[in-house]
Amino acid sequence: MDLPHPEYNYFVARQIYNKPAFDDEHERKARVPKTLREKLVPKCDFSKKRAFQITKGFLPILDWLPQYRIKEWLLSDIISGVSTGLVCTLQGLAFALLVAVPPKYGLYAAFFPILSYFIMGTSKHISVGPFPVTSLMVGSVVLTMAPDQNFMIASNGTSINGTVIDTAARDAYRVMVAGTMTFLIGFFQLGMGVLQIGFLVRYLSDPLVGGFTTAAAFQVFVSQVKLILAVPTLNYNGVLSIIYTIIDIFKNIHLTNFADLVAGLLTILVIMTVKELNTKYQHKIPVPIPIEVIVAIIATAISYGVNLQAKYNAHIVKSIPRGFLPPQPPDVKIFSEIAASSFSSAIVGYAVAVSVGKVYANKFDYTVDGNQELLAFGVCNVLTGAFSGFLATTALSRTAVQVSTGGKTQIAGILSALIVLIVIVALGPLLQPLQTSVLAGIVVANLKGMFMQVLDVPLLWKQNKTDSIIWVFTCIGSIILGLDVGLLAGVVFEMATVVVRTQFPSCSALANVPGTDLYKNIKDYKNISEEPGIKIFKCNSPIYFANIDFFRDRLKAIVGVDAVRVNKKRTKALKQIQRLIKKGRLRATKNGVVSTTGIDNEAFEKDPEEVEDNEIPSTQVDIQVDWNADLPVKVAVPKVHIHSLILDFSAASFLDVMSVKSLKLVIKEFMRISVNVYIAGYDDEIYQKLELCDFFDDMVKRDILFLTVHDAVLFIKLQSINGTIQDPIYDKIALMQNSKDPILLTDDDDEEVETYDNQHRAIHGLSH
Amino acid sequence: MDLPHPEYNYFVARQIYNKPAFDDEHERKARVPKTLREKLVPKCDFSKKRAFQITKGFLPILDWLPQYRIKEWLLSDIISGVSTGLVCTLQGLAFALLVAVPPKYGLYAAFFPILSYFIMGTSKHISVGPFPVTSLMVGSVVLTMAPDQNFMIASNGTSINGTVIDTAARDAYRVMVAGTMTFLIGFFQLGMGVLQIGFLVRYLSDPLVGGFTTAAAFQVFVSQVKLILAVPTLNYNGVLSIIYTIIDIFKNIHLTNFADLVAGLLTILVIMTVKELNTKYQHKIPVPIPIEVIVAIIATAISYGVNLQAKYNAHIVKSIPRGFLPPQPPDVKIFSEIAASSFSSAIVGYAVAVSVGKVYANKFDYTVDGNQELLAFGVCNVLTGAFSGFLATTALSRTAVQVSTGGKTQIAGILSALIVLIVIVALGPLLQPLQTSVLAGIVVANLKGMFMQVLDVPLLWKQNKTDSIIWVFTCIGSIILGLDVGLLAGVVFEMATVVVRTQFPSCSALANVPGTDLYKNIKDYKNISEEPGIKIFKCNSPIYFANIDFFRDRLKAIVGVDAVRVNKKRTKALKQIQRLIKKGRLRATKNGVVSTTGIDNEAFEKDPEEVEDNEIPSTQVDIQVDWNADLPVKVAVPKVHIHSLILDFSAASFLDVMSVKSLKLVIKEFMRISVNVYIAGYDDEIYQKLELCDFFDDMVKRDILFLTVHDAVLFIKLQSINGTIQDPIYDKIALMQNSKDPILLTDDDDEEVETYDNQHRAIHGLSH
Repeated sequence: MDLPHPEYNYFVARQIYNKPAFDDEHERKARVPKTLREKLVPKCDFSKKRAFQITKGFLPILDWLPQYRIKEWLLSDIISGVSTGLVCTLQGLAFALLVAVPPKYGLYAAFFPILSYFIMGTSKHISVGPFPVTSLMVGSVVLTMAPDQNFMIASNGTSINGTVIDTAARDAYRVMVAGTMTFLIGFFQLGMGVLQIGFLVRYLSDPLVGGFTTAAAFQVFVSQVKLILAVPTLNYNGVLSIIYTIIDIFKNIHLTNFADLVAGLLTILVIMTVKELNTKYQHKIPVPIPIEVIVAIIATAISYGVNLQAKYNAHIVKSIPRGFLPPQPPDVKIFSEIAASSFSSAIVGYAVAVSVGKVYANKFDYTVDGNQELLAFGVCNVLTGAFSGFLATTALSRTAVQVSTGGKTQIAGILSALIVLIVIVALGPLLQPLQTSVLAGIVVANLKGMFMQVLDVPLLWKQNKTDSIIWVFTCIGSIILGLDVGLLAGVVFEMATVVVRTQFPSCSALANVPGTDLYKNIKDYKNISEEPGIKIFKCNSPIYFANIDFFRDRLKAIVGVDAVRVNKKRTKALKQIQRLIKKGRLRATKNGVVSTTGIDNEAFEKDPEEVEDNEIPSTQVDIQVDWNADLPVKVAVPKVHIHSLILDFSAASFLDVMSVKSLKLVIKEFMRISVNVYIAGYDDEIYQKLELCDFFDDMVKRDILFLTVHDAVLFIKLQSINGTIQDPIYDKIALMQNSKDPILLTDDDDEEVETYDNQHRAIHGLSH
Repeated sequence: MDLPHPEYNYFVARQIYNKPAFDDEHERKARVPKTLREKLVPKCDFSKKRAFQITKGFLPILDWLPQYRIKEWLLSDIISGVSTGLVCTLQGLAFALLVAVPPKYGLYAAFFPILSYFIMGTSKHISVGPFPVTSLMVGSVVLTMAPDQNFMIASNGTSINGTVIDTAARDAYRVMVAGTMTFLIGFFQLGMGVLQIGFLVRYLSDPLVGGFTTAAAFQVFVSQVKLILAVPTLNYNGVLSIIYTIIDIFKNIHLTNFADLVAGLLTILVIMTVKELNTKYQHKIPVPIPIEVIVAIIATAISYGVNLQAKYNAHIVKSIPRGFLPPQPPDVKIFSEIAASSFSSAIVGYAVAVSVGKVYANKFDYTVDGNQELLAFGVCNVLTGAFSGFLATTALSRTAVQVSTGGKTQIAGILSALIVLIVIVALGPLLQPLQTSVLAGIVVANLKGMFMQVLDVPLLWKQNKTDSIIWVFTCIGSIILGLDVGLLAGVVFEMATVVVRTQFPSCSALANVPGTDLYKNIKDYKNISEEPGIKIFKCNSPIYFANIDFFRDRLKAIVGVDAVRVNKKRTKALKQIQRLIKKGRLRATKNGVVSTTGIDNEAFEKDPEEVEDNEIPSTQVDIQVDWNADLPVKVAVPKVHIHSLILDFSAASFLDVMSVKSLKLVIKEFMRISVNVYIAGYDDEIYQKLELCDFFDDMVKRDILFLTVHDAVLFIKLQSINGTIQDPIYDKIALMQNSKDPILLTDDDDEEVETYDNQHRAIHGLSH
């Protein structure tokens, strides 16, 4: 794809365009905003067809089930459903430990959400149910609301540090809290779905999610290590609770139950090894080995056979009663306490489900409807919460099982629910001898992928410092503050980085690339140079309240002219010159103003500040002064070597009221010292904002707007040739001085002294 | 300033530049980043002169006091100092009521900060001391920490609803809380000064400050009305506390003390009237009438003469003991409870002082150093907090008095402190008969300006919707949530608006303005039209995690091509064509692929999804297909009418890792369907970001980057003429079909059905 001809094939010959000239020639279309009626009418189509479409939108099952290809899909859906169902059962039991409720409630969490998702979901492949991170988020709220300490009684029970706990009451209350929170989460998701604000999930950027899930993996790991070691810890919540838990674990590590420890470690070892093999030989074996299920069955058999509980005091699942609990109403009283955490969890749960759903939707070429998913999960969680389950989303590992075993539609999902149902109503008691440390081991063995994300950080740092800082901040924040607050802190931090990125934009002086209409940063190219007398300033960001001061500072620094200061000094000097003329010490001639005698001190006795408040005379009132010549007065007026300033607005994507006001002020300040300001590369929207904020008046006219920087530069050059620019450098009448004595200069404002001033200050200092 | 010549004076003839071509011709300068040594060396200059400069920086008094012009300035400083001192005294007493501490502590708050500001401050004109808004912010914390309810006792005291309160203990605790909070505020300000993060104040944009101060005025008004009516209310804090207070006031309004009410209303009336006159005749009277001082003196005299307290049970200032209290250490225990509010107050206090300081610095042509001010106010507040005063900043009204009576330097400030000192050590008891309702009246009468800000809102709404929403949100938030939390909510909301403004940027399709190198939104101009086959897409914002999905959606909508879907459909069709060729039903000829028989159903039996997972064949493997001709297969392949897509990046001021990844994906998706993608108007920084994130590879090459949109368009046109572009519309071998039966089309993905598809679906439906 080399450029075909090296000749001058970019050829443009046209008029120079400023805003009025361009608008004259090229007629603008007025955009007619749609009326309310026009906007509403398409939404108010109540035909039967439309009604059916809407119903299908809310209940996607009406759409896909009639098209189900039984012959082709049913067999693989059955195989997939059964495999996934076993994993569902096991993960349900395991993740219940993260929620700090008895394992059986995990079965409800694995069963109920699938029912409503089957009807309302738009993903064909995800396996709906609990997920470790969200389970832990619910769990941390459960532990905060119902710590062991609240259930200490005098009767028998589990013993911690000599005190006794009413586990039945505690667990009942914990289940209620988990259910209520899940209900509230569903409510939030429904609300977001109705308001169509699923886009909130976009704030969960990849680096943020990376940091968050790594922190979550760490939190999950700690909570499961506790179960594998089977050591008691107190319940902590809030800042640093994980650190206190770790300290507790080490403090009580002498209480470790070795039967549980061995079972847990073996589980981790076996599962991780087989998973490695599954990955390595994935093309050689038809389906991955369902190692978790195998391990669980073997472990249950061993525990039952050896009677680990009785002999080694091992912690087992204990009670999995058959059947369901009646639905419970949520406890409205605790809503306000758990609202913030529920909202975080609702967002995370939804984000996990949608991101996994989208992966498979892309792979199999269909779309997942974000808002419908919000509604579907909202209903799922309301239902699950009512039936004592906990937060439903999806788990990538389980969904991978469902897909890799051949799942084609949510028929596989509903079949997996059937398996869970069978366990609930019939097989549950068989799993009672299973050790909790084996379940914990299954959870830990699945954390590897989440921990491996740490390795992304160095690459991220190389690619984009800000993104890697977001990653690290969210990770550390979520570990220290807990997952819910940590996530919120991460999002606020991330939003702050966006603001900061626009708050300190890169600003540069541009110069013409010779022979072209292109303008580049003078720091970046060797053979480009600025037109004498013209400065081009580009600020690479929108201009608004947070960066307008920065914009002004950079403008001052890059242009090298402090317009306010220059104007003050000129006014001061002018006053003195006028006074000298009045006294006859200076004379205005055709060739300039000539001082007739040396300068005496009398002229300086009156402090110039005293007259400051009066009307400031324009430089044109009496005399014209060449401000870049040496002046016959003691005021050091900074030299200004430009007559035109072009502001390149091509990257200014929005302005606000404050920035427009400030810009106007800046332009006027420069105009007062005879520097013309032009705005180039403006967007039509920016122009409208300027109009709305009364940017233009007698001084700041619309014809300072130019279509491109080159238009502005050509215009300035043309004006310069035609002599229409009042060039402050070359075109002023010279102010002459015929005394040859050096002029002594002083200045009140020490912090602002220019080099020129400093030299003469030394002289002045000596003369005292 | 009309354009001088109507001819074609914009003339450019040059080579077309893409990135490699431009870099070949115009040598880039490598920017050498400064080494750590180079950065540090200038800061490590330990010469004597430098040491003196640094000392002068921290103690500006060393700079300005030696230059004090006694003859010229001293007299006006004395006059100003005495007037301001009287106002300081009065405002000190009045604002103490806002802090809910006895009035005498306001005198300390008016005295101590001036001492340290005299030494460390950089503003010559501000009158340092309490300010109503910040006083109320301290007050709300004081009331939260020490509500009346906490000090109920059985002995004598003030009576509320029959219970009795230990006012002495309550007031002592309140003074301690106010002092501790002020100390902490000073500590925060010092910290920000040391870290040089005074720029945080920039987040307080004009609309936010407008809303906040209006809310503050309302809060101040309610708290003072309570004092003017002299009705008891309970102390509320947190959300909606102001509403409860208002309800309490109305509930107890029958307890109004008429002596207090009359005094308060008269004060308000007189002060507001005289202030109006002051403004109206400001050019005719030498100095404004010090009406507050006059009213206070008269009111004190009347109260003393008539003995209002004894006769009418009026509430008076009561005890102003002579002298100072010994310094108190702050109560570190309550730091954590008051930290958040203190931080808000520290920011507000600093922001008020600096903004007032800057107004006068601009007027009198000197500079106020933001960081030095932070340090100065930090020290002021630490000192004031230790001596039982409260938050020092400045009040515009008091500063206006200081300036209008002729204050030239902080000598006026220190003299006003002297007046306060005289009151503290000698005259205090004389003010004891003053009614608190008069003090409250003075505060209320000064709120007018703050309330008038409400009138800005309609104009703001016209100029910029976002800014006006920020105003209203902050105002309502600060009223409902309280000033500290409300301010924080306002800042977070404001930051969110910045994110949202970039999250939903305006995106548009551009087209060439005929005869020029300019490209404008096709919706905005009448006589511009798009080049056939070329789409130019501009997204008017940075591209990053929050808007990348939006960017992709808009791109899809505006370009009118869903590249992923097109590719899937083409792949599907190609598979069927290949199968048909294999079976001999289609024949590839030189002129295209000819189907030899009609289409039978056998070809469609196998589900195309099943082969999806295998390697996707490129469109070039076996045959070339003209995708825009009618195909002899039942797959509806959407037609693509463009061969080139140009992304205008001129407004993309930054990218992040997510957006670069997504952009690369988008470009590859388009390339797969033979649409070439070019990026035009890129900034050199954006190029570097792309390089760092491994954007370029064998498929996405550096020569897709063009300097301007016009360069890209010219390049595409040249390629097209030379036939080097594989134009998917015109250059493909036609795929011919010799059967004349209508082709039946079906499609699995209902939600994505195109119009073309729908038409034929109707036919298909009938044929069942």
